[in-house]
Amino acid sequence: MAIVLGPIQYGKAETRLVRIVRDTARHEITDLSVSSALRGPFGPAYLDGDQSNVLPTDTQKNTAFVWAKKVHPDPIEAYGLSLAHHFVDDVEPVEGARIEIERYDWTRVEVDGKPHDHTFVRTGQEVRTAAIVLDGTAEHVVQGFKELIVLKSTGSHFKDFLVDEYTTLQPTDDRIMATSLTAQWRLTDAAADTDWNGMYAGVKAAMVSRFATLESFALQQTLWHMGRAALEAYPAIAEIRLTAPNKHHFLVDFSRFDEPNENEVFHADDRPYGLIQASAVRDDAAPAGDAWRPFTGLV
Amino acid sequence: MAIVLGPIQYGKAETRLVRIVRDTARHEITDLSVSSALRGPFGPAYLDGDQSNVLPTDTQKNTAFVWAKKVHPDPIEAYGLSLAHHFVDDVEPVEGARIEIERYDWTRVEVDGKPHDHTFVRTGQEVRTAAIVLDGTAEHVVQGFKELIVLKSTGSHFKDFLVDEYTTLQPTDDRIMATSLTAQWRLTDAAADTDWNGMYAGVKAAMVSRFATLESFALQQTLWHMGRAALEAYPAIAEIRLTAPNKHHFLVDFSRFDEPNENEVFHADDRPYGLIQASAVRDDAAPAGDAWRPFTGLV
Amino acid sequence: MAIVLGPIQYGKAETRLVRIVRDTARHEITDLSVSSALRGPFGPAYLDGDQSNVLPTDTQKNTAFVWAKKVHPDPIEAYGLSLAHHFVDDVEPVEGARIEIERYDWTRVEVDGKPHDHTFVRTGQEVRTAAIVLDGTAEHVVQGFKELIVLKSTGSHFKDFLVDEYTTLQPTDDRIMATSLTAQWRLTDAAADTDWNGMYAGVKAAMVSRFATLESFALQQTLWHMGRAALEAYPAIAEIRLTAPNKHHFLVDFSRFDEPNENEVFHADDRPYGLIQASAVRDDAAPAGDAWRPFTGLV
Amino acid sequence: MAIVLGPIQYGKAETRLVRIVRDTARHEITDLSVSSALRGPFGPAYLDGDQSNVLPTDTQKNTAFVWAKKVHPDPIEAYGLSLAHHFVDDVEPVEGARIEIERYDWTRVEVDGKPHDHTFVRTGQEVRTAAIVLDGTAEHVVQGFKELIVLKSTGSHFKDFLVDEYTTLQPTDDRIMATSLTAQWRLTDAAADTDWNGMYAGVKAAMVSRFATLESFALQQTLWHMGRAALEAYPAIAEIRLTAPNKHHFLVDFSRFDEPNENEVFHADDRPYGLIQASAVRDDAAPAGDAWRPFTGLV
Repeated sequence: MAIVLGPIQYGKAETRLVRIVRDTARHEITDLSVSSALRGPFGPAYLDGDQSNVLPTDTQKNTAFVWAKKVHPDPIEAYGLSLAHHFVDDVEPVEGARIEIERYDWTRVEVDGKPHDHTFVRTGQEVRTAAIVLDGTAEHVVQGFKELIVLKSTGSHFKDFLVDEYTTLQPTDDRIMATSLTAQWRLTDAAADTDWNGMYAGVKAAMVSRFATLESFALQQTLWHMGRAALEAYPAIAEIRLTAPNKHHFLVDFSRFDEPNENEVFHADDRPYGLIQASAVRDDAAPAGDAWRPFTGLV
Repeated sequence: MAIVLGPIQYGKAETRLVRIVRDTARHEITDLSVSSALRGPFGPAYLDGDQSNVLPTDTQKNTAFVWAKKVHPDPIEAYGLSLAHHFVDDVEPVEGARIEIERYDWTRVEVDGKPHDHTFVRTGQEVRTAAIVLDGTAEHVVQGFKELIVLKSTGSHFKDFLVDEYTTLQPTDDRIMATSLTAQWRLTDAAADTDWNGMYAGVKAAMVSRFATLESFALQQTLWHMGRAALEAYPAIAEIRLTAPNKHHFLVDFSRFDEPNENEVFHADDRPYGLIQASAVRDDAAPAGDAWRPFTGLV
Repeated sequence: MAIVLGPIQYGKAETRLVRIVRDTARHEITDLSVSSALRGPFGPAYLDGDQSNVLPTDTQKNTAFVWAKKVHPDPIEAYGLSLAHHFVDDVEPVEGARIEIERYDWTRVEVDGKPHDHTFVRTGQEVRTAAIVLDGTAEHVVQGFKELIVLKSTGSHFKDFLVDEYTTLQPTDDRIMATSLTAQWRLTDAAADTDWNGMYAGVKAAMVSRFATLESFALQQTLWHMGRAALEAYPAIAEIRLTAPNKHHFLVDFSRFDEPNENEVFHADDRPYGLIQASAVRDDAAPAGDAWRPFTGLV
Repeated sequence: MAIVLGPIQYGKAETRLVRIVRDTARHEITDLSVSSALRGPFGPAYLDGDQSNVLPTDTQKNTAFVWAKKVHPDPIEAYGLSLAHHFVDDVEPVEGARIEIERYDWTRVEVDGKPHDHTFVRTGQEVRTAAIVLDGTAEHVVQGFKELIVLKSTGSHFKDFLVDEYTTLQPTDDRIMATSLTAQWRLTDAAADTDWNGMYAGVKAAMVSRFATLESFALQQTLWHMGRAALEAYPAIAEIRLTAPNKHHFLVDFSRFDEPNENEVFHADDRPYGLIQASAVRDDAAPAGDAWRPFTGLV
C-alpha cells in the first residue's frame, strides 16, 4: 500500500489587469482579473522539489500582462484562447492550461449630454466570467457571469411541497423571489468568428426575460427554464450550469401593530439561504473533457 | 479623581428593509439598510443596568419596518426625517436621534423592449446614503453616496512634489486616476418640498462632470473642485466632505519584453492606497451641531 | 437534438447554529455553520414546478436545529452522519445527502487563573470543516480545515525553475513562505468509534510539523509532503487534497535608502498570488464516489 | 458668501509590513498594517494643484518600511511615535501626523513539544490597534483592539425596559450575550518607559474578566463596567471608548417539534444587530486634542 501523488495543478490567481486603448483621443478600458493554471509533468516539483519543468507563477503573471498588449483583451474569450495556446504551444512541458477571467464593466461618463473621451464609472452590476481550457487537443470556452442579482416582486408561488414533522413553512401563492445568479455555459465549437460579446448579451437577456415572464412554482423550475432559454437562443451552447441562492425576503409580521402589511414590507435576510443548482444540456453534446475542472478549490 | 460616564448612544444597525409598492400591476421597489441611534438620559442603563428609559433596539427595528408602511421610503430623506421625529417626539425620554440609511438601486427589467411590471435587476453602482439627525430642536440632513468608482485614463499629472531622502516616486504628466468616492453633503435648510432625488442626481452629475473635465494635478485638487461644484450647483448645501482612496494603477514594466507599454497596460493594486480627504464649506454656513456625529465607530 | 435536465441538487446553506450544553454550571459551546444538500428524484420540481418530492430548505434548516438537540454536535462528524442518515433514511424520496459543516472554535476564558464556567472568547484561527456524504449505500466523511495561515521566515528556496522570455523572477535560497491552507482528507472507513477530534488535532499537528521541518524547494513540494505526513499518521485516511495560495512577501528594496535590508523588512502583497494544488492518495484507496462532489458552486 | 476649504488631511493607508528579526536562529515576526496621515499647510495642493508642500503618499509608505528597520516595530506604539516624530520634526511643512497601526498576532509553532525557530501560525483572534497622534506639541497614544469576540452563555438579563406600541420583545432573565468588541483607550502621559505590551495584555484581561463576572442587565451596563475596569487597572489611561454590536443569538422555537429547547439551541443572526457605544473618562483627564480625530472616514 503506497502513498502516491494524485491530481495537481498550479498557477497565478487574480492578476488585476487594466488595458487602456488610446490610439485616438477616445480611450477604451478593459478591466480584468486574470488567473492561469498549468497542467503537465510537474510531478518532480511536488515529489522532489525539482523545478526544471515549472514555469514560475510570476512568469505567468508577466505573460498575462504582455498578452494584453499583443491581443486586445476585448472580447475576453479571444484573449484567453490566445494566452492558453501560448502556454500549451510555446512552453515545452505544459500540456494543458485553464485561463479564468473576470471582467468588470465600466460605463463612459456623459458630460453635458456628450460621452467623455477618457472618463468612466464602474458599472458594478454582474461580473462577466470566462474559462478557457486547453485539454490535450480540445479547446473549451465556458462563458458566464456571477452576481447578477434579480428580483421579482410577485409571480412566484411555493406550495404543495413535501411535509414532514419538521416542516413549519406555510405555502404561498405570492412571494418575492430573488437570487444572485451564477451561470456558466459551455461552447461545443468555439468558431474563430464567434461574436462573444453579442452572445454574452444575448444569453443574459434571454435568461432575464425568462425569469421575468415565467410564472414560478419553485426556484428550481425557474432556473431550468432560464437555462433552457439560453440553449434555445444559441445552438452553439452545449450545456449550461446555474447556481442560485434563494435570497429570502420575509414578510414582516405586523399583526401586533396598527398597520396592515399586505405583501409590502419585507426583511431581506442574509443567512441561511436556499441554494438551488440546475443544469441543462443537449443530449448530443460533445464531451466536456476538462471544461468544468476548476482552478480554485480542491483538485 | 473619579471615573465618569462619557458620551454614549445606542441603537439598531443594518435593518435590511425592502418596500414594494403594489397599488397597481406596475410595482415599485425600495431596498434599504436602516440604522437608528438614540441619544438621551440613558445613563442609568449604563451605570446601574436600569432599562426603564431604554427603548429596545428590537423595537427600533420594528418601528423602521412599520414606518416604511406609514411613510413611503422614497425619497429616503423624508422617511428618515419622519422616523427620527417619531423617536424624539413620541418616545418620552429620547432627546436626539440619528437615522442612517443606505439605498441599493434597482433597474426595471426590459422584456422585448418593454419595461416589466414586477421584475428588477440590482444596479449595483454606488450606494446612496442619508443621515438624518435631530439634535435638540435642530434638524440636519446629510445626503451622500459611497463606492462611486470613477476613473480617468489621462488628464492627470503628479509632479513638483516635496522630495526627501525616502522619495523614490517619479513625477508624471500622464497617469490613470481612479478612486472609490465617498461624499456627504449637509443641508442648511431641509425645506419640506425639497426634491431629494433630483438633488441627489444633480450633485452626483456635477461632481462626476468636474472629475472628467478638470485637468488634474493631484487628487487633492480634484476633490476640492468636485466639492465646490456641488456647492455651486445647490445653494442649499452648506458643506460637503469627501474621502477618496487613490486606487493606484501602476504601469507594468515591459522593458525586458518584446513589446512597448506606452501607458496601455496597468496593474490595479489593492493596497496600500493613498487616502485623500477634503471638504468645502460656505463661510456663512449654519453650525453643524451633531450633523456629523456618527452612529457606528467610537462615540 | 433535445435539451435535457443535467445534474441537480438543492438544499439550505449556512445555518448558523450555536449549541450550549448546560447540564452543569460549567457550560460547553459548539458554534457551527451547517449546510445540507439533497439528491434524488427532484426532476419534476425543475421541469414542471411539481414540489411533491421536495422537502423545503426551510425544513432542512429546522431539522439541523432539532438534530443539534438530539445528537450533540461535537464531534461534528457524528452529528453530520446522523443528520445525513435522517434525510436519506427517513424522508422517502431522498436518495443522497451532503452535509457540510464549518466549526468556529472558542476558548474558555480564565478569570484569576481559573477557567470560567460560561464565558468564552472566539479563537479565530483556522475554521474546521467536515463534509458527510451519503451516496447510495456508501458513507463518506471528509474532514478538514480552511484558513490555517502558516509562515516560515527561512528554510524556503525557489530556484532552477523554467525560464522563458517573460521570466524576470530571480532565484532565491532564502525567502518567506506563507500560505492560508485549505486541506480536506477522506476517510475510507468511518468506524463508529472514530476519535474525530483526536484525528483532527493529529492531522493538523502532523502537517504543521512537516511544514516547519521540511527544507522547502517549492510550495508544491511542501504541500505534497504535508499531505503525505497526514496519510502516514492515520491509516484510515484514503486521500488528502490541499489548496494553498502562495501569499507573497516581497523584500522591500532599500537600495536607495540609508539602511540595508537583509531579509528583514517585507511587503505582504494581496494579489495576485500563486495558487498551488496538490493531493496524496493511497494506491489501494476505495473509490471516492460522491465524496468530493461539492454542494456550493456549479453542479 | 464664499465657498472655502474646510478640514483636510492626506496619507497612505494599509501598508502591509512584515518585520523579521533574524539576529539569531530563533526568528521573531511582527506583522502590521501601517497607515499615516499628515496635517499641515496643504491648502495650495487642494486649491491650485501646487504640490510643493506635499510629501507623496508613496514616500510615506517607503518611510514606514525604512522605520521598521530603524526602530523595531514591537511594541507598535514606540515605532509609531518615532515615525510620527519623523514626519513632524524632520519634514519641514508637516505640522501634525496620525499613525494608525493594526497588528496581527502570530504564535510560534511547536514541533515535538519544542518551539520552532522560524515557523509561525497566525493566531487570528482580536486585532491589536494603535493610533499615535502628534498635534502641535502634544503627543497622544490611543491603544486598543477590535474584533475581540466574547460570549457568555448565561448571566445576562434584559427586562424592565421601555415598552411602546411597537415593542414585541419579551423580557428575559437568561440569554446569550455576545459581541465583537472594539475598544480604544487614551494615555495621558506616554512615558518613555511605558510597558506597552504589558499594558495591552493587562487591559484586555481586566475587561474580559469583568465581562465574565458581572451579572449583566444590559450590554450598556456591561460595557461601562468593562471600561471602568480598564481605568481602575491603569491610572495612566485617561479615557476609554467602546463600541459593541449586540450579536443576537435567538433561541430556536421548538414548540412544534418533539424536543424541548431549554436555552440550548440558538440561531446566531447576522443582521440587524444592536449597536451599543460607551465611554468612561477620568474627570480630571487632560484634553484629548486631536487624539480621537480619525484618519479614515470623513474629515
